[in-house]
Amino acid sequence: MELWFTEKYSQNCGLTINVKNEIYSERTKYQDIAFFDSYDFGRFFTLDGYMMVNEKDEFIYHEMITHVPLAVNPQIKKVLVIGGGDGGTIRELSRYEHIELIHHVEIDERVVELCKQYLPQTACKLDDERVEAFYTDGVEFVKGKENFYDLILVDSTDPIGPGEGLFTKEFYRNCYKALNENGILVNQHESPYFPTNAKEMKKAHAKLKGIFEICKVYQFHMPTYASGHWLFGFASKKLDPIKDHKKDEWEKFNIETKYYNSLLHEGAFALPNYVIDLLEEASEEDMK
Amino acid sequence: MELWFTEKYSQNCGLTINVKNEIYSERTKYQDIAFFDSYDFGRFFTLDGYMMVNEKDEFIYHEMITHVPLAVNPQIKKVLVIGGGDGGTIRELSRYEHIELIHHVEIDERVVELCKQYLPQTACKLDDERVEAFYTDGVEFVKGKENFYDLILVDSTDPIGPGEGLFTKEFYRNCYKALNENGILVNQHESPYFPTNAKEMKKAHAKLKGIFEICKVYQFHMPTYASGHWLFGFASKKLDPIKDHKKDEWEKFNIETKYYNSLLHEGAFALPNYVIDLLEEASEEDMK
Amino acid sequence: MELWFTEKYSQNCGLTINVKNEIYSERTKYQDIAFFDSYDFGRFFTLDGYMMVNEKDEFIYHEMITHVPLAVNPQIKKVLVIGGGDGGTIRELSRYEHIELIHHVEIDERVVELCKQYLPQTACKLDDERVEAFYTDGVEFVKGKENFYDLILVDSTDPIGPGEGLFTKEFYRNCYKALNENGILVNQHESPYFPTNAKEMKKAHAKLKGIFEICKVYQFHMPTYASGHWLFGFASKKLDPIKDHKKDEWEKFNIETKYYNSLLHEGAFALPNYVIDLLEEASEEDMK
Amino acid sequence: MELWFTEKYSQNCGLTINVKNEIYSERTKYQDIAFFDSYDFGRFFTLDGYMMVNEKDEFIYHEMITHVPLAVNPQIKKVLVIGGGDGGTIRELSRYEHIELIHHVEIDERVVELCKQYLPQTACKLDDERVEAFYTDGVEFVKGKENFYDLILVDSTDPIGPGEGLFTKEFYRNCYKALNENGILVNQHESPYFPTNAKEMKKAHAKLKGIFEICKVYQFHMPTYASGHWLFGFASKKLDPIKDHKKDEWEKFNIETKYYNSLLHEGAFALPNYVIDLLEEASEEDMK
Repeated sequence: MELWFTEKYSQNCGLTINVKNEIYSERTKYQDIAFFDSYDFGRFFTLDGYMMVNEKDEFIYHEMITHVPLAVNPQIKKVLVIGGGDGGTIRELSRYEHIELIHHVEIDERVVELCKQYLPQTACKLDDERVEAFYTDGVEFVKGKENFYDLILVDSTDPIGPGEGLFTKEFYRNCYKALNENGILVNQHESPYFPTNAKEMKKAHAKLKGIFEICKVYQFHMPTYASGHWLFGFASKKLDPIKDHKKDEWEKFNIETKYYNSLLHEGAFALPNYVIDLLEEASEEDMK
Repeated sequence: MELWFTEKYSQNCGLTINVKNEIYSERTKYQDIAFFDSYDFGRFFTLDGYMMVNEKDEFIYHEMITHVPLAVNPQIKKVLVIGGGDGGTIRELSRYEHIELIHHVEIDERVVELCKQYLPQTACKLDDERVEAFYTDGVEFVKGKENFYDLILVDSTDPIGPGEGLFTKEFYRNCYKALNENGILVNQHESPYFPTNAKEMKKAHAKLKGIFEICKVYQFHMPTYASGHWLFGFASKKLDPIKDHKKDEWEKFNIETKYYNSLLHEGAFALPNYVIDLLEEASEEDMK
Repeated sequence: MELWFTEKYSQNCGLTINVKNEIYSERTKYQDIAFFDSYDFGRFFTLDGYMMVNEKDEFIYHEMITHVPLAVNPQIKKVLVIGGGDGGTIRELSRYEHIELIHHVEIDERVVELCKQYLPQTACKLDDERVEAFYTDGVEFVKGKENFYDLILVDSTDPIGPGEGLFTKEFYRNCYKALNENGILVNQHESPYFPTNAKEMKKAHAKLKGIFEICKVYQFHMPTYASGHWLFGFASKKLDPIKDHKKDEWEKFNIETKYYNSLLHEGAFALPNYVIDLLEEASEEDMK
Repeated sequence: MELWFTEKYSQNCGLTINVKNEIYSERTKYQDIAFFDSYDFGRFFTLDGYMMVNEKDEFIYHEMITHVPLAVNPQIKKVLVIGGGDGGTIRELSRYEHIELIHHVEIDERVVELCKQYLPQTACKLDDERVEAFYTDGVEFVKGKENFYDLILVDSTDPIGPGEGLFTKEFYRNCYKALNENGILVNQHESPYFPTNAKEMKKAHAKLKGIFEICKVYQFHMPTYASGHWLFGFASKKLDPIKDHKKDEWEKFNIETKYYNSLLHEGAFALPNYVIDLLEEASEEDMK
């Protein structure tokens, strides 16, 4: 059947994907969610028409959001995940036996329930006993928390719809307070290539720069996100992702990965000049 | 107007691009060539329906094929470019004043003529006085050359159509002979993500491994090529792209780049585990 | 969401439809069936990827297959419907109170069950007490029936997949026998415009011509079928669709229609020259 | 090459056509014009992104706009064609030897020039000696003309862009004056199916009804126009398209046609109920 899902990267281009079937769809309180089976990417799901996660390459995103901070501070024990209702980030976290608690804050409980049903590949560890789930707004949740978390992972959608508040200065400031002195925040940081994404990348970077002592950006090859060139922001109070990289300690964890490795950890922070320029512009501009 | 060009990455997915107009098309002796104006990528051209080069991101490909070997051996003086009729690779080479000669072997003279007319952004240095053009088959051209070139850049299309012979063992063996003892070959190496590309990547790698002493692969973010995750093969007789990286010498050239830089040089060789695995498989399999 | 269903009319063109959601899909014993909600056409369903019926224009097809023969022989009492699992044809038949029995032969019971669930607009009269359903092959069902039906409606899919046997000479010959002396057969007759459809139109016409005394073709505007120019074959033992048109008797039924009317009845048989020529060619060729 | 032209029938559906090449495009003083070669429809051209004429089915439109009025008044000698820069309508008119003059009013001379160059199939008779061309606005041209023409053919684009003035009451009133007592106007009348077209159909009909004594609508199967169900308005001072149909006289002209014939002439005026209803609504509403 000629049924094609197109993820528009702009008004004038997009990735178009032949789907076998739409498995399920629902209008939740917050957004439209739909699950599809495709030929090239296996099962995938969309929020408000944008692909979030697919079986073929979700490992890239979820390894890169998780293992980079864990290799900078292998003693991370208390983690806050905001968003990430599909469970992929928590699945990767759950592989570290020494992690003691994972607070999972997801605004839309239906995303979690449906991913458990339709996307077990990512949702398989959402019931790990160390995970405590809070179905609430991440912006509210983090308010008032102090000096508690070792790591906050902002695994959000684009800053449109329910994810919007997660891209504000106030939110980042509260995250800063919620982190302890070794605290790290990793932030879904959009992409430098298409203008809409680049604008959001710059905004997020400028805001974090104004709050955190250390503020770096790392990249990875994510073929099903716009341009395939995707970024995470790495912000911390004192740990530097390269200088404090604990390669040997991390390798002792013996975690088998398909994308991440210690060499790539450092390579990922080596950005192209044009990305560096955009990020510098961002710091100079008065980004709201 | 709703006129969309789609670059199929497989039977079941592709990048779809709204074009303003098709500027020109021709069936040459070797292939179909067409030029388009698009909203997001400026002018681009296609060979046999596949996008080769567009104004928005050609700089990435052309910087990465050129500056990496020049930063490993900054004394490169004699260069052979095979393919690359658009001129982007030669434009980057022409920025090195100490390069003495550039042999440009392109099978299809019409590609060169039409890119000069329709794509001056890349074709602007094809008339540099150090460039000597040979409109002939690269496979034939390289036969019998011995101990002459410092660098061979195989800037070819996919191994279908006119580019096919450039992916054979015999061709690589003749390149080896044509290079001098410091010789480097950089090869368009396809991509690890979609099965068709990954298969070609493995084949090319296996063949080079059997011939060259040093054989590495480096990656870059090329948003308009399949998956955005593209590779070059770096093959040489004795120079290692990391150990012999002449960062300081290269930086003295004072070449302004938009993608490449010395830190990224090293980061580009830090491949994801799944790519490393594919390349190792390739070496073990008996690739024809 | 950018989810588009495309009905290919040929390799190189098609109707493309933005769908809201795929409601349900299933691989039955015979075919793939799927239900969609669309913006322009309401709910529609597909068999093996081809659109069968949509809420916006199904009335055209179903009125034209039914009311034309009823206006030629208003005494029709015994009807056989082959195919038409969506129920639209039976819904129109059910409006004639004097019809006594409707044998409904549909090979795929799941089509009927699912249309009852998902497409009540057409399936609403499938439980009319005059309807007797037979879930079996129409080709087999009609074998051995003699001198029984006033009307046979072949409401089939294209002659690919389960519908294939309904386009054979043997089947039409058995239909002839199953009809009484006033018997009429109306046949889904494809379309004259795109080559694939035109070929099937010619085949069906040639076969009927060899068997029935009277053999005419009528046309209607069906926007969601290939080219919008669709045909039914009208074959009978002695009744002529124009000469025997019982305009006044039919109008006494007082059936409210949205497409069909008595003037259009006659207009529908006025075919364009190029269609006449194709049908004449068909009669002359030895169509298998 | 995957290069597809899509004619959007609404925001949510359209006909999508694989094109071989765009042959030529230009921004004229009035509109964008482009010529394409396609697999299924041969050469076609677009104005402002809408397909006007293609080699495969232009005969349908051009026969139906021309031969219907000529079969009602076979004495037509003086014709005004407004629009129709492609020449197809004039080609059909030129087949009547007794026609004495054809005033051709086309606002955009470039359309005529380019169709002569790129679309000889329709433009072949634009240099017929009876044709006098006026490159001016049809609305202006017709002002002040009195009692002169036997026939006015309004072969316009949709009422958007340069064609807009041709859908106004004032224009139709001036056409009425420009016609003699046997005068007929045939008007491109859009389509009943998709809401945007239906709205324009109703507007045009309401306006003509207020001016002409006789006002009918006839239909034809035009596969590449939205829905395939297209209409012409037939407006006249006293001649009725059915009652005054001069079948025998027309057949003496011995004009070979591929779509039109005398039986179809009458059938074309037999409209579906839903179209009749829309047209009646139009007459009742106060259409501006």
